[in-house]
Amino acid sequence: MFSSPAYKKETYSLCLSHIITNPIFTSSSFLSFQAMAGHDVAGKPTPTTNPMNSDEFRRQGHMFIDFIADYYANIEQYPVTSKVKPGYLRDLLPPSAPFEAEPIEEIMRDIQNHIIPGITHWQHPSHFAYFACTASTAGILGELLAAGLNAQAFGWAASPAATELEMVVMDWFGEMLNLPRTFLFSCGARSRSNQELKLEPKPSKSANVGGGGVIVGTTCDALIIVLVAARDRKLAEIGKDGIGKLVVYCSDQTHCTFEKAAKVVGIQPGNIRAIATTKTTSFALSPDSLDSAIRSDVETGMVPLFLCATVGTTSTTAVDPLEPLCRVAAEHGGGMWVHVDAAYGGGPCICPEFRHALDGVEGADSISVNAHKWFLTTVDCCCLWVKDSGAVKRSLSTNPEYLRNRASDSGDVVDYKDWQLTLSRRFRSLKLWLVLRSHGVGNLREFVRGHVAMAEAFERLVEGDGRFEVVVPRRFSLVCFRMVMMTLSDNDDDGGGNNLMNKKLLERINGSGRVFMTHAVVGGIYMLRFAVGGTLTEPRHVVEAWKMVQEQADAIYPEHANGCSAPNGIRGVSDQSHAKSNGEMSDYSSN
Amino acid sequence: MFSSPAYKKETYSLCLSHIITNPIFTSSSFLSFQAMAGHDVAGKPTPTTNPMNSDEFRRQGHMFIDFIADYYANIEQYPVTSKVKPGYLRDLLPPSAPFEAEPIEEIMRDIQNHIIPGITHWQHPSHFAYFACTASTAGILGELLAAGLNAQAFGWAASPAATELEMVVMDWFGEMLNLPRTFLFSCGARSRSNQELKLEPKPSKSANVGGGGVIVGTTCDALIIVLVAARDRKLAEIGKDGIGKLVVYCSDQTHCTFEKAAKVVGIQPGNIRAIATTKTTSFALSPDSLDSAIRSDVETGMVPLFLCATVGTTSTTAVDPLEPLCRVAAEHGGGMWVHVDAAYGGGPCICPEFRHALDGVEGADSISVNAHKWFLTTVDCCCLWVKDSGAVKRSLSTNPEYLRNRASDSGDVVDYKDWQLTLSRRFRSLKLWLVLRSHGVGNLREFVRGHVAMAEAFERLVEGDGRFEVVVPRRFSLVCFRMVMMTLSDNDDDGGGNNLMNKKLLERINGSGRVFMTHAVVGGIYMLRFAVGGTLTEPRHVVEAWKMVQEQADAIYPEHANGCSAPNGIRGVSDQSHAKSNGEMSDYSSN
Repeated sequence: MFSSPAYKKETYSLCLSHIITNPIFTSSSFLSFQAMAGHDVAGKPTPTTNPMNSDEFRRQGHMFIDFIADYYANIEQYPVTSKVKPGYLRDLLPPSAPFEAEPIEEIMRDIQNHIIPGITHWQHPSHFAYFACTASTAGILGELLAAGLNAQAFGWAASPAATELEMVVMDWFGEMLNLPRTFLFSCGARSRSNQELKLEPKPSKSANVGGGGVIVGTTCDALIIVLVAARDRKLAEIGKDGIGKLVVYCSDQTHCTFEKAAKVVGIQPGNIRAIATTKTTSFALSPDSLDSAIRSDVETGMVPLFLCATVGTTSTTAVDPLEPLCRVAAEHGGGMWVHVDAAYGGGPCICPEFRHALDGVEGADSISVNAHKWFLTTVDCCCLWVKDSGAVKRSLSTNPEYLRNRASDSGDVVDYKDWQLTLSRRFRSLKLWLVLRSHGVGNLREFVRGHVAMAEAFERLVEGDGRFEVVVPRRFSLVCFRMVMMTLSDNDDDGGGNNLMNKKLLERINGSGRVFMTHAVVGGIYMLRFAVGGTLTEPRHVVEAWKMVQEQADAIYPEHANGCSAPNGIRGVSDQSHAKSNGEMSDYSSN
Repeated sequence: MFSSPAYKKETYSLCLSHIITNPIFTSSSFLSFQAMAGHDVAGKPTPTTNPMNSDEFRRQGHMFIDFIADYYANIEQYPVTSKVKPGYLRDLLPPSAPFEAEPIEEIMRDIQNHIIPGITHWQHPSHFAYFACTASTAGILGELLAAGLNAQAFGWAASPAATELEMVVMDWFGEMLNLPRTFLFSCGARSRSNQELKLEPKPSKSANVGGGGVIVGTTCDALIIVLVAARDRKLAEIGKDGIGKLVVYCSDQTHCTFEKAAKVVGIQPGNIRAIATTKTTSFALSPDSLDSAIRSDVETGMVPLFLCATVGTTSTTAVDPLEPLCRVAAEHGGGMWVHVDAAYGGGPCICPEFRHALDGVEGADSISVNAHKWFLTTVDCCCLWVKDSGAVKRSLSTNPEYLRNRASDSGDVVDYKDWQLTLSRRFRSLKLWLVLRSHGVGNLREFVRGHVAMAEAFERLVEGDGRFEVVVPRRFSLVCFRMVMMTLSDNDDDGGGNNLMNKKLLERINGSGRVFMTHAVVGGIYMLRFAVGGTLTEPRHVVEAWKMVQEQADAIYPEHANGCSAPNGIRGVSDQSHAKSNGEMSDYSSN
């Protein structure tokens, strides 16, 4: 079979001659080396592997770079969503790993023929589903470099540059978001208007107290980390058996990952208060509702532990009002931990005109922003800042003998293993650093503004067609909209008809393969989510997406086609359509 | 400043003309597009960004591939460990992110000048510290491709190929380890000697019951996942307030990550039983000791929950005897969950001659193996197999409306978000698939065998020098050894002199920058760990490392140089040497 240049017989032969001439070698160890060097009993060389041959890496590496470059050059030729059926790949691949090596050319053929057709193209410019996770030249190559160096970054000593770059870049990014300096490593963080000031180096030992940032995988990692820190801080106060009394708060719009994280750390499911929101606050968490919920729990002897506030909810990008929420949390004393989940909504906050969404963050204990959403780093790259790193470390630090080293013992360094759940960690700061430098703060702001402007334009298109409505006020780059052909009931909770019609509309849009959107149901209303944020998305894609929406609306109701404003009261049709659509749609992967 | 080809003004101009000629556009939406297209009020184009320009990606990508290829071509020129001091990088980098974009050439210069000197070169062939985490052409390029496609893989519908490839590759890898088929997705998994049999497709719905594998980041992720599943299964039985009664078991040699994971999921620190091991069992967990510990807990009303057994402990690669341990766990009834942490020790088990280390795994509930340790995938890639995926999913599944889709609702597909802690996930199966195919099972076995043979040779070298001893029997590719110049006390727990001497020896070895080893302390004995496993490590590096050990030993005790067997009883010298070494060593990052 295939014999790649990566398999080098010469290496071991060379080595063998070295060993032979080495006077320290005994006869028995020579024999063992001979065996390991791939020589059989008769001394004949047998093939051995060098999986990291530099020349072969160069050859294959250039092939992969060209493959990815071509993929992006042609990305608009692909349908956004895949049309494959469950189990498609098992039928295409052998049931077992090969015994012999296979040539890279054959593997790449399989990638093109078998993998690419099963991909939902998240980087397609017409991918408007969920929230975008953005790729970029800088982000992809940062990940490549991290994999290339493949240095473990669990502690400072394990690879100093990895830890130090992460500290620098987390301070840079925190400053871009205008976070209070209590969240940063640098004591002397200065305002951007005062560029001539120098950052003061931290005094010795201070690496282990106060604020700072860490890169983790995703928001769920971040939430588990701060929940554990908050839990243990509280249990130290009320006793270890009090875990069943701990209550955490969020809204009914908080991402499901919070409930999951809370359960993981042992909060009883019945102690997770998902406080109801309403359309009157645009589905933001009301401080009064939080206050009532806390009061009610305290009265029954429960212990308020944690509030997860969201800046930019997943369904509708609602922004919980941080300042009054933090005030409510503080008023109840007892050191409730407030975390700000700004996974998506943190992005725009690098622009002064959107920064108000984070007003009040100074009252919070921690905040997380997903750089892989709007900051071009590719997944995964969640940036978490905490004020009290000591609380995190008291819960998460480990110090086994086999990891001890002089730097850690000195207390002068940050060991990020103690800021996160896992020990192993990638050198993720490289990609964020590359993105920030390759683009600069100015261009990143324009990048965000471009997406918001495209969403704003789409919103106007929706508003200009009488058959549609924007369901909640647009904020940032998400437009939540729906068709409104049915008579609405007074409380907007019309349930049936309109919802089924919009579900059918979305299925038809996604079934085209040319555009991908997802949906949400908030306050009983099924709505289409049009989330702009792709790296390659341009105004023309927004225009085409809107045309697709209109075409499918026309097809559902030909009598109201061509943008005519539609009368109310066409009941019954949508039920029928929905039933039919189940048969029509064989597309599993679109929503 | 720099204007990269990635910044394309033309894109928006083209788009603008498209919009102008598009009849669906109203005047107001046109104006908003004009604004978003980067044209100011006077209609003059302003620069906008395209961070994913295909041509620019190609240009920079080839630069990065060459950078990494050159890095590997020259890797032996670098000292293994970095000599930088804490805080070195903050002084070299600006205090804030740049406002303007910077050219990639400048960034790469900084990588070479500022980052590389702060790297501990984990891929250096003379890196014998910790356990290796192996890079390879296939692993690095697999990670590159995953970052390049940047598809979210949280559920089947979010990118079918990512889910399906992971299922296939986890079955392949599980079969390589000869795991019982109860851990695999495929019902019809066949033995390798029966190649002509076909895998049967799973019956509909069965994706959601039974066994299967998932790729997570690290062992700690895997442990939290199965601990939560076990915890919730038990609490469903004994009531939610019973969490304070749950007890978990491990040995005093179990990796610290288990204690951390147990605390994360709310197990009280006092309920984590790290059962003492002894030299008589080579520091493996004794089934009798486990039995006693469980009995004692049950008698006091505690509830045994979980056993973490290890195949290849970090300090000395001890192998806990799975079969009797699982039997003890089963004898106590009540469904104790047994997890096998084979992060390192699972690797050799792809070779028939080492597979006995996993004997008894059929009695366990889950097992994890780090592919990034011995399987060339780069960090992070931890493979976790479970028998009862339903238990995991009952604890970790989420089903918010905004993630619902037809495929998930059908129950025909695996949604990996419900098998792990986080929602977002990378397309990690690509790199494992590339590794398995690029090398084949046969070569991977030889790769592992080569490392074991090199360790065996090193062991003989140690044994051949009377000043040294191998402290515990070598198993796999780790040699635990030390200098023995002092009279040993009868119980081997000699503490002081020998330990200080060996600490000094290790500091001198690592201080050379030419070799990197770490240490462990087991049974009171400070020992040097010589862990073979680097992708590029060849016999000559092992020889050089041994020469370095001897040279440093000679330097410490010139009177016993040149491999002479040393007499016992040279007390006092090592204390003195240790005191001196603190002043000598300014190297923070080596151990």
